Amino acid sequence: MVRFVDVPRMRHWVEERGVETVIRGIAERIESDFRRWPEFDTQARVASHSPGGVVELMPVSDSRRYSFKFVNGHPGNPAAGLQTVTAFGVLADVASGYPVLWSEMTILTALRTAATSALIARTLARPDSQVMALIGTGSQAEFQALAFRALLGIDSVRIWDTDPRAMDTFERNMRPLGFSVHRASDGAEACDGADIVTTCTADKAYATVLTDDMVRPGMHVNAIGGDCPGKTELEAAILHRADVFVEYPEQTRIEGEIQQLPEDFPVTELWRVLRGEEPGRTSAEQITVFDSVGFAIEDYSALCYLDSDLGEGEAADVDLIAEPADPKDLFALVAAGANSTVRLG
Amino acid sequence: MVRFVDVPRMRHWVEERGVETVIRGIAERIESDFRRWPEFDTQARVASHSPGGVVELMPVSDSRRYSFKFVNGHPGNPAAGLQTVTAFGVLADVASGYPVLWSEMTILTALRTAATSALIARTLARPDSQVMALIGTGSQAEFQALAFRALLGIDSVRIWDTDPRAMDTFERNMRPLGFSVHRASDGAEACDGADIVTTCTADKAYATVLTDDMVRPGMHVNAIGGDCPGKTELEAAILHRADVFVEYPEQTRIEGEIQQLPEDFPVTELWRVLRGEEPGRTSAEQITVFDSVGFAIEDYSALCYLDSDLGEGEAADVDLIAEPADPKDLFALVAAGANSTVRLG
Repeated sequence: MVRFVDVPRMRHWVEERGVETVIRGIAERIESDFRRWPEFDTQARVASHSPGGVVELMPVSDSRRYSFKFVNGHPGNPAAGLQTVTAFGVLADVASGYPVLWSEMTILTALRTAATSALIARTLARPDSQVMALIGTGSQAEFQALAFRALLGIDSVRIWDTDPRAMDTFERNMRPLGFSVHRASDGAEACDGADIVTTCTADKAYATVLTDDMVRPGMHVNAIGGDCPGKTELEAAILHRADVFVEYPEQTRIEGEIQQLPEDFPVTELWRVLRGEEPGRTSAEQITVFDSVGFAIEDYSALCYLDSDLGEGEAADVDLIAEPADPKDLFALVAAGANSTVRLG
Repeated sequence: MVRFVDVPRMRHWVEERGVETVIRGIAERIESDFRRWPEFDTQARVASHSPGGVVELMPVSDSRRYSFKFVNGHPGNPAAGLQTVTAFGVLADVASGYPVLWSEMTILTALRTAATSALIARTLARPDSQVMALIGTGSQAEFQALAFRALLGIDSVRIWDTDPRAMDTFERNMRPLGFSVHRASDGAEACDGADIVTTCTADKAYATVLTDDMVRPGMHVNAIGGDCPGKTELEAAILHRADVFVEYPEQTRIEGEIQQLPEDFPVTELWRVLRGEEPGRTSAEQITVFDSVGFAIEDYSALCYLDSDLGEGEAADVDLIAEPADPKDLFALVAAGANSTVRLG
């Protein structure tokens, strides 16, 4: 039997534990997994592009656990009442190859993306950071805000989105939770006075959500929306002024903000910073950019955390693995459907 | 909601329709999909190797449907009472990226592998073929025999396996179904008088299950067990005497029998033969080899056939896709788990 966490069970788990508690737990697990990065068998994700979007498979493994995530990105989906990004994933046992946990990951991805953003901001942003600008207040926005409060204590957010209803929703969701929300009239106003800028827009285009003049010395930029070929958010000049930190260069150079730049543009791998092998922020004036595209280890960490935290009765058991009594006699499972008459077609 | 076919539902479907009927249906679908091969976005599967085995993801898509299969191969599993190969897969809608069908594929893979073998043998073996040798009578064996009967009318099988119990099981399963089974004392005796030889063994090693002297002019060799790097079954000399047909050269050169040969060893792609663009068998003396490793389109075909054939109530509905009322308000699904108190960790 494989444990299965469907959407109602995922909602139940998050609501029982608390959003910020879950985000902190996932962030801790991501941090410890990033610190042992060389133990993982890593590869760039496998993308299948179509006119409407992309479907990706993101596999990774260490010596004990294998995980993969299926995730789509279809910017036109909301117009049809569908989610831009949906996902599910599986955790499997490396020794036997058997899956052990299968889970919805639309919600879990939002949680792990926010956990990663906040973990990296805690590492790279100025320690006195108090205000975050949030450009793009779609499905990710509330998770980002809660993660930054959970890990950095930031509860002052300046928001901007081209869709006023998306800002309405964010305000309606976050004000009751104790956040101070300033609704800006454009991206520049949102960034004014911010210590951290998170860009999180969905258009599949070379967009310039953040222009060079909006970025002040000392800022940390958490660029999470530019995450596939042909989809960027930052004016290239920002990257030239900043130090750029990435999850997995092989993937980020194809999918991240740095796809705009030459292949030898210098970047720092975050796992090396978390291990203390490379410097993070070195001055209060330095501009740091997390060119986030999402990496399979973050999903692995989230699935492992979920797997270890799920209590009795919090997952369903599904019969996914055909197990005949004699492992060499798979046919026994369907023998009742075999006919002794020759039925040549 | 996503339709889900677990193991009991797969067994029910196969038993209701009949094993040979399902195999014929899948073979027809594979044939028509192979004939429109250039419409598919193809790639080699993504393998993760470990000391105990391999886990693979096999994605493929056309303009309408995307599919992938998760499949493991762990030769040591039966000793622990587990299956060597287990699998599950997903069919998704390309336009939205949403999954539509999730299915066990341990049984379905056995069916589609047998369907492919028989389809290709119908194309390449001598039309007067009457006897098949089956070397390796593990989990695949009965499915192979039934597929060859369903598509070619062959009901005379000569078997050999190093494990006598595996031969016992095969005999016990197949004799009541009207097969004539000759139990050989070695591989050479099994091949004696056979028109078609199927090799289907599981050891992850450079094995020589079939030696050159066992292969007579006019034979068709259906080599399905050599399917990952370091795992072959045929003596290389056989390949030099034969014409070799493959599913997807990029993958077969890494995983198939021809991994033993130089990279420019000539092979023929089967989809071109099925389209009539390349010759198949051209004489009664020619030796033909199907160097089978399994390809993602076969899984796509099997999943599409299953999806189209499943009736009302034959699949479960699972809630896999988080769908908030407002597609930009994913947070609404877990808002009950957000706390207004700052809980800085």
